[in-house]
Amino acid sequence: MSDQKPSAKAEPATAGSNQMWGGRFASGPAAIMQAINASIDFDRKLYAQDIEGSLAHAAMLKAQGIISADDHAAIEKGLSQILGEIEAGSFQFSAKLEDIHMNVEARLAELIGSAAGRLHTARSRNDQVAVDFRLWVKRETERTAHALRGLIETLLSRAEEHAASVMPGFTHLQSAQPVTFGHHLMAYVEMFGRDLSRAQDAAKRMDESPLGAAALAGTPFPIDRHATAEALGFGGPTRNSIDSVSDRDFALEFLSVASIAGVHLSRLAEEIVIWSTPQFNFVRLSDSFSTGSSIMPQKKNPDAAELVRAKTGRLNGHLIGLLTVMKGLPLSYSKDMQEDKEAVFDAAETLDLMLAAMTGMVGDMGVNTDSMRRAAGAGFSVATDLADWLVREAGLPFREAHHVTGRAVAEAEKRRVGLEELSLADLQAIHPGITETVFDVLSVDRSVESRTSFGGTAPDGVRAQIAYWRERLASA
Amino acid sequence: MSDQKPSAKAEPATAGSNQMWGGRFASGPAAIMQAINASIDFDRKLYAQDIEGSLAHAAMLKAQGIISADDHAAIEKGLSQILGEIEAGSFQFSAKLEDIHMNVEARLAELIGSAAGRLHTARSRNDQVAVDFRLWVKRETERTAHALRGLIETLLSRAEEHAASVMPGFTHLQSAQPVTFGHHLMAYVEMFGRDLSRAQDAAKRMDESPLGAAALAGTPFPIDRHATAEALGFGGPTRNSIDSVSDRDFALEFLSVASIAGVHLSRLAEEIVIWSTPQFNFVRLSDSFSTGSSIMPQKKNPDAAELVRAKTGRLNGHLIGLLTVMKGLPLSYSKDMQEDKEAVFDAAETLDLMLAAMTGMVGDMGVNTDSMRRAAGAGFSVATDLADWLVREAGLPFREAHHVTGRAVAEAEKRRVGLEELSLADLQAIHPGITETVFDVLSVDRSVESRTSFGGTAPDGVRAQIAYWRERLASA
Amino acid sequence: MSDQKPSAKAEPATAGSNQMWGGRFASGPAAIMQAINASIDFDRKLYAQDIEGSLAHAAMLKAQGIISADDHAAIEKGLSQILGEIEAGSFQFSAKLEDIHMNVEARLAELIGSAAGRLHTARSRNDQVAVDFRLWVKRETERTAHALRGLIETLLSRAEEHAASVMPGFTHLQSAQPVTFGHHLMAYVEMFGRDLSRAQDAAKRMDESPLGAAALAGTPFPIDRHATAEALGFGGPTRNSIDSVSDRDFALEFLSVASIAGVHLSRLAEEIVIWSTPQFNFVRLSDSFSTGSSIMPQKKNPDAAELVRAKTGRLNGHLIGLLTVMKGLPLSYSKDMQEDKEAVFDAAETLDLMLAAMTGMVGDMGVNTDSMRRAAGAGFSVATDLADWLVREAGLPFREAHHVTGRAVAEAEKRRVGLEELSLADLQAIHPGITETVFDVLSVDRSVESRTSFGGTAPDGVRAQIAYWRERLASA
Amino acid sequence: MSDQKPSAKAEPATAGSNQMWGGRFASGPAAIMQAINASIDFDRKLYAQDIEGSLAHAAMLKAQGIISADDHAAIEKGLSQILGEIEAGSFQFSAKLEDIHMNVEARLAELIGSAAGRLHTARSRNDQVAVDFRLWVKRETERTAHALRGLIETLLSRAEEHAASVMPGFTHLQSAQPVTFGHHLMAYVEMFGRDLSRAQDAAKRMDESPLGAAALAGTPFPIDRHATAEALGFGGPTRNSIDSVSDRDFALEFLSVASIAGVHLSRLAEEIVIWSTPQFNFVRLSDSFSTGSSIMPQKKNPDAAELVRAKTGRLNGHLIGLLTVMKGLPLSYSKDMQEDKEAVFDAAETLDLMLAAMTGMVGDMGVNTDSMRRAAGAGFSVATDLADWLVREAGLPFREAHHVTGRAVAEAEKRRVGLEELSLADLQAIHPGITETVFDVLSVDRSVESRTSFGGTAPDGVRAQIAYWRERLASA
Repeated sequence: MSDQKPSAKAEPATAGSNQMWGGRFASGPAAIMQAINASIDFDRKLYAQDIEGSLAHAAMLKAQGIISADDHAAIEKGLSQILGEIEAGSFQFSAKLEDIHMNVEARLAELIGSAAGRLHTARSRNDQVAVDFRLWVKRETERTAHALRGLIETLLSRAEEHAASVMPGFTHLQSAQPVTFGHHLMAYVEMFGRDLSRAQDAAKRMDESPLGAAALAGTPFPIDRHATAEALGFGGPTRNSIDSVSDRDFALEFLSVASIAGVHLSRLAEEIVIWSTPQFNFVRLSDSFSTGSSIMPQKKNPDAAELVRAKTGRLNGHLIGLLTVMKGLPLSYSKDMQEDKEAVFDAAETLDLMLAAMTGMVGDMGVNTDSMRRAAGAGFSVATDLADWLVREAGLPFREAHHVTGRAVAEAEKRRVGLEELSLADLQAIHPGITETVFDVLSVDRSVESRTSFGGTAPDGVRAQIAYWRERLASA
Repeated sequence: MSDQKPSAKAEPATAGSNQMWGGRFASGPAAIMQAINASIDFDRKLYAQDIEGSLAHAAMLKAQGIISADDHAAIEKGLSQILGEIEAGSFQFSAKLEDIHMNVEARLAELIGSAAGRLHTARSRNDQVAVDFRLWVKRETERTAHALRGLIETLLSRAEEHAASVMPGFTHLQSAQPVTFGHHLMAYVEMFGRDLSRAQDAAKRMDESPLGAAALAGTPFPIDRHATAEALGFGGPTRNSIDSVSDRDFALEFLSVASIAGVHLSRLAEEIVIWSTPQFNFVRLSDSFSTGSSIMPQKKNPDAAELVRAKTGRLNGHLIGLLTVMKGLPLSYSKDMQEDKEAVFDAAETLDLMLAAMTGMVGDMGVNTDSMRRAAGAGFSVATDLADWLVREAGLPFREAHHVTGRAVAEAEKRRVGLEELSLADLQAIHPGITETVFDVLSVDRSVESRTSFGGTAPDGVRAQIAYWRERLASA
Repeated sequence: MSDQKPSAKAEPATAGSNQMWGGRFASGPAAIMQAINASIDFDRKLYAQDIEGSLAHAAMLKAQGIISADDHAAIEKGLSQILGEIEAGSFQFSAKLEDIHMNVEARLAELIGSAAGRLHTARSRNDQVAVDFRLWVKRETERTAHALRGLIETLLSRAEEHAASVMPGFTHLQSAQPVTFGHHLMAYVEMFGRDLSRAQDAAKRMDESPLGAAALAGTPFPIDRHATAEALGFGGPTRNSIDSVSDRDFALEFLSVASIAGVHLSRLAEEIVIWSTPQFNFVRLSDSFSTGSSIMPQKKNPDAAELVRAKTGRLNGHLIGLLTVMKGLPLSYSKDMQEDKEAVFDAAETLDLMLAAMTGMVGDMGVNTDSMRRAAGAGFSVATDLADWLVREAGLPFREAHHVTGRAVAEAEKRRVGLEELSLADLQAIHPGITETVFDVLSVDRSVESRTSFGGTAPDGVRAQIAYWRERLASA
Repeated sequence: MSDQKPSAKAEPATAGSNQMWGGRFASGPAAIMQAINASIDFDRKLYAQDIEGSLAHAAMLKAQGIISADDHAAIEKGLSQILGEIEAGSFQFSAKLEDIHMNVEARLAELIGSAAGRLHTARSRNDQVAVDFRLWVKRETERTAHALRGLIETLLSRAEEHAASVMPGFTHLQSAQPVTFGHHLMAYVEMFGRDLSRAQDAAKRMDESPLGAAALAGTPFPIDRHATAEALGFGGPTRNSIDSVSDRDFALEFLSVASIAGVHLSRLAEEIVIWSTPQFNFVRLSDSFSTGSSIMPQKKNPDAAELVRAKTGRLNGHLIGLLTVMKGLPLSYSKDMQEDKEAVFDAAETLDLMLAAMTGMVGDMGVNTDSMRRAAGAGFSVATDLADWLVREAGLPFREAHHVTGRAVAEAEKRRVGLEELSLADLQAIHPGITETVFDVLSVDRSVESRTSFGGTAPDGVRAQIAYWRERLASA
């Protein structure tokens, strides 16, 4: 059981032997063992959570009469000093002491002597690491939710600005029907909105404190797990001590939330890369989010968008990495689980960076509404509007209306004009039921305005979507 | 735009040319194109959802005055007949008609003629496939939740039966402290309980109908998307038509829920494999879930457990597969998204099978409580109980108590006896503060009973956990 | 041990009990067990390899005097009949008989009686499935190599045709320097050439026959494994019987070769999608590999390219799936390994389809050399040529040359002309060392022709690359 | 094009503007851009390769008369000083200079002035990073091969020591037939031997120098790519300049080689974890590779084995991460590719550690041959030997022999004795053809000795396998 190792300082080891578990191990741990086993290089990131957890535990031990007020005071003072040392950069971390927990504990023993030995009463490294890491992940999940909200707000602003700016709506990267740029951006609001909701659900599900599960079986000491849970800001304690030290699905859920959000970010990033080509020329990234060439001034490389797109791979990698680690692990704690941290730390930092970069890019990119409008009008993009008119006004079945439209487009293509440039006579030659009012629908603006179905691209509909989200964010 | 292809039947093609979009494509599609493009081999699985969606759409079109009552009646009758044909196995699926939507539509045209052409008013293949697939995934997610509940109930029964059966609690697959088998099983109840909660959150998040998004931009027809959403059992319509046809995060979320549940299943499966070895001999799978050898009758291969463990790989694979597909796809619909279905279909079926097999195995496996008890008592597993006694009763700091315990264990090991078999004198020679009451904690039963902290392994605590879950399941 | 089950037919079981291992299992296997355990639905694909392996085994048993000539003749005749039945579609597969091996064996017993029972001498299901699957994967790997070669040959033809067709060379999807389309296609020849070499290495590494490893330990019968290896076309037998039935790294290597090739295919597919947009208009897919819209005739959706791009996900999924399955499996055979087949079967079929579709698309796509040339000349793409001229002819350090070039481009941009349209006086005003000969490099054709370094884009260099590959393919 | 940015030092920027590309970018890059864009934190690992590549390039430029001997001498001296500064830890890395290439170049400009500007002639950051990274990966692949060889040699030693030590051969983690521990270890030699061969193939395939590809199109300077390739120890230059800067399949291949080796390592690690349980008690890890508990001295946690097992996840994650990054990237260089390095760096370090830890564990673990032998004899493990005897000596068909054996085992089980403890009369009552010689096969030693087929577990066969590998390693 990994929690029962006396600290290096409390129990000095003989030379060459392992400095933590003392005399039974005749030989010293190989350098390779230290390299593979020690986690202090990455789990020091948990120092604040570790000290916070210890403070909550110590306060509870005192309240329950398990340790004395004096010991509690010493522990509190010692931990507070250690926190200061770490934040000031003066703390000496030691790989021999393996992890953040033993590093803090050993220093506490130096500072306050035997009272330090009482802090570990009714606790184990297993529940200690579980509570530290869960606190960290929970807060990071909340931070992700916050960053998603920031991106959504930026998208709402830009969508509002462009609620009526027409652009081609693509399928298969071929333009299909005119939409508005605001409407397009609002599609991402829906995606990131679901990502936000997933992050919130995840944060709620992981809102349980494992502290007090001890090594795996609970403890005979009269501890108060509800008190420590509350002190640490958790909704309550976990209900099963074995599960508490064995499972890492909160980390897996965070990683899956991150990967799905990463997919959404990569899609918008890909669009920005394509839109930034001279061929599309729909948007122009600000200098802050692109790089240039000293001799080709027109060239603006969308580096930030490319990196956001690429970093999706890293998120997927971390998710599959931890899923692989956890596969087939018997309960309860196995050392394999030490591999949970680096993946989650890097994924959290990566997602944060992706969200910040995307928020920045979206917020200050230039939008070439002229290019978009030109592209929106090309390629007979109002063909479906003609077909819909034929169904609605001339009573044709949908499939026949399509047939008639196809003939009209062929005619326009032959003459190298747009559909709206055909004369009424031309159109009536194709189908006699066509009347003057057909021209009301044959423009990108009219096309867009006409799509008033709920969720459709009509500018007023887009504005209603924006209002919905503003209200929803305000009330949550 | 994939939705604008007239059906093969409505518009007969010239020989050799594509039978769906007619004359513009001079040459016929290569066989290879049909092989890579047609989805009917797998998306026929959506036939019920497709017809259901069409019925809801037709009823709404009639209610809104977009199609006539006669057309509606014909459509309803025709679809109903098609449903019957498919369920009877008499329907002729055609790969030339590519997918389930066109297969149904072409048959409808055969059956009811031109009225069939009106069904597609204000609809597109893009929103049609989105609503079909989402309905399917939503129901499968609910079915997963149901199956998880079944597994939890089975675990609760076995846990109740074994609330007080001692077994070794393992860390690093080494026995660490005694726990009860019921407590161990309840750890899985917590895990599968979170999986259930994840499935419920996912089902709720995907509870929005994309029908009416049309190709991508919405439609100028006065449709009622709330009505179709309600008719199909959705909580409401989606809010953005581009998002509705572009995103598949509901499928990704289902896959991630499945993968995390798969990890939990693989852990229990691994334990069953290990517990079934002659070396452990903790459980004995029923004949129904193991295979044997005609000449080695004692051999019972835990095939079902191995397969449950292995199928985790398939779930991870499908998750990473779809994450890869969706990475960097520009909006709105791209044909890439056709790759969503097989992954989800197979993952759903796989998870279903894993849950059923695990429920079966857990439900009827024999539990060798004697072997478990023997193993629980071996290896000085009550050492921490002695240490805790020293802290609690003799007032030693935790770290010193551990030191004393180590000496006691060394003494017992030297004499080849258990800790509880040392005499009081022996123990007092190690530490004078030890008294007769120490023997109250030096047995596996006393160890287990003493761990009364919330969530701990004391049998009454385990029973309280069971009661909690019974109530929670009943009220949800 | 999974190989020791007598067949259903040889040993009729009591009603309700398992039909294969008979009386010891009192209860019949649950339906769920059959669903999770039976592999006949997918491993029937191995029927030819299974029969081939049995024929080689039987011939060897006869040659070694282990079975009689009569038994051998009966076995050969029976297997030959079974092969015919399966290929004629008249064979009755049974899920109760679990897999292809038992299905064939049971039928053989029906056909030839007790001689069938001698075929399994010195063999087990473990080495039988290993040899069947390895034969299949080896041949599929060779088939992949063949298909890669076909794609390379098609690329070589198109590259030759366009060895001098200029197009923009992109970095960050921004045009950077002119290259030729032939040169661009030859980059893919290098990639697919490495994929081919990887497939060949893999095929060679898996060229060892596991037949004769028996259950896991080898056999006391005087078998000749070199003879069966040779009969099956393997380079020789595997060297360790436990490894032979335990490992599946040949399948993992095939999947990794497929995934890397899939990445290359997805890159070319993405380019085709982008090049097919009206905005780029570099290529035009044939009707065979695109789909259209009945009412928007100009729209050609690059469905085949999108599907090739997407199917990369499926390959990655299968790779990660089997890596997950094999992780942490103790030796030797575990039932988990049954999960190897579907992943590999589907990956092989998928890769085949991707290669065929890409070969078809590349082979008949139209190339708009005018659009490419126009794009190649835009954006001061010859700026680096000016800078290189300054270094080479005017002796400027590289970094200073870049500075001067930047000023020239700024001047041209201000006047809205190309670099080559500036007058000599204009250029000399920027740097006095510039002479008339500078205009020799300021055109896309001159730029391309000048890049004569080994592997560079000069048309003659491209032709030399093509010649190299033609010779290499011819000699291999 | 990312290579054309003048260095910060050569061209001082105005305050607040980007310090590398100067005046065109009015605003300074956001902090976020620096955080997402700069790679110096990780690519500084390539410093030696970067300087080595520059030295080779400069020497070639001089030899070809492109730069002067004086400039070359200055460059060589400057680079040599920089190498010294970096190795001494006195070099000041700057995130503003983004990457290792610009950091070195800027320092070179400080040291030697304008000559530094000539080093970049006929080169670009694109081919510079390609050659640096490829050199690194190639050497790491060779290092992996070396480490695999070390592990194989250790396995050979232990296998030789235990060529005749019997242990149970498992299928489904149930004992099936006796094998020798040496034979079991040799199965891993085959696996790691294939891993070694894969690493060697990969190293050979990546043995081509991309230096001289320049930005993407090659260069008009008369460079000698064969000379730089040779100077850097490559087999030759790459053949296509676009491929040279665009592809990263050498990195993907390294990662797939690592993942497959990781699977093999995880399997042996899992076995060590299981074998170390008190229940199995087959091996005892040395103190160097396990951790203990201060109060439970019998407990030896196999931490190193658990970590090796777990780190498979990390390898899989990095592989899938880079496969995702590269999916669908248009040629040539995109910034996405910057994500290649951290994955490969960490995978290489991880695999190194896994191999070292496994070599250490295998080398000094204690082997409990008594426990193994006891387990090997339990459970009628010689049943197949009886069946084989019946086929061989009594002429029964295989399936009938199994039937008879099943009856013998049932009889032995009823009497609670081993098969070898039944009397001849008992056996003859089951089948009259059984004779005294049957007892020659009914012991684990005889069972093992009898399996003399090629690759089988007979100790002499195991020794032959060891000799084969010794010779193969010696000759390669």
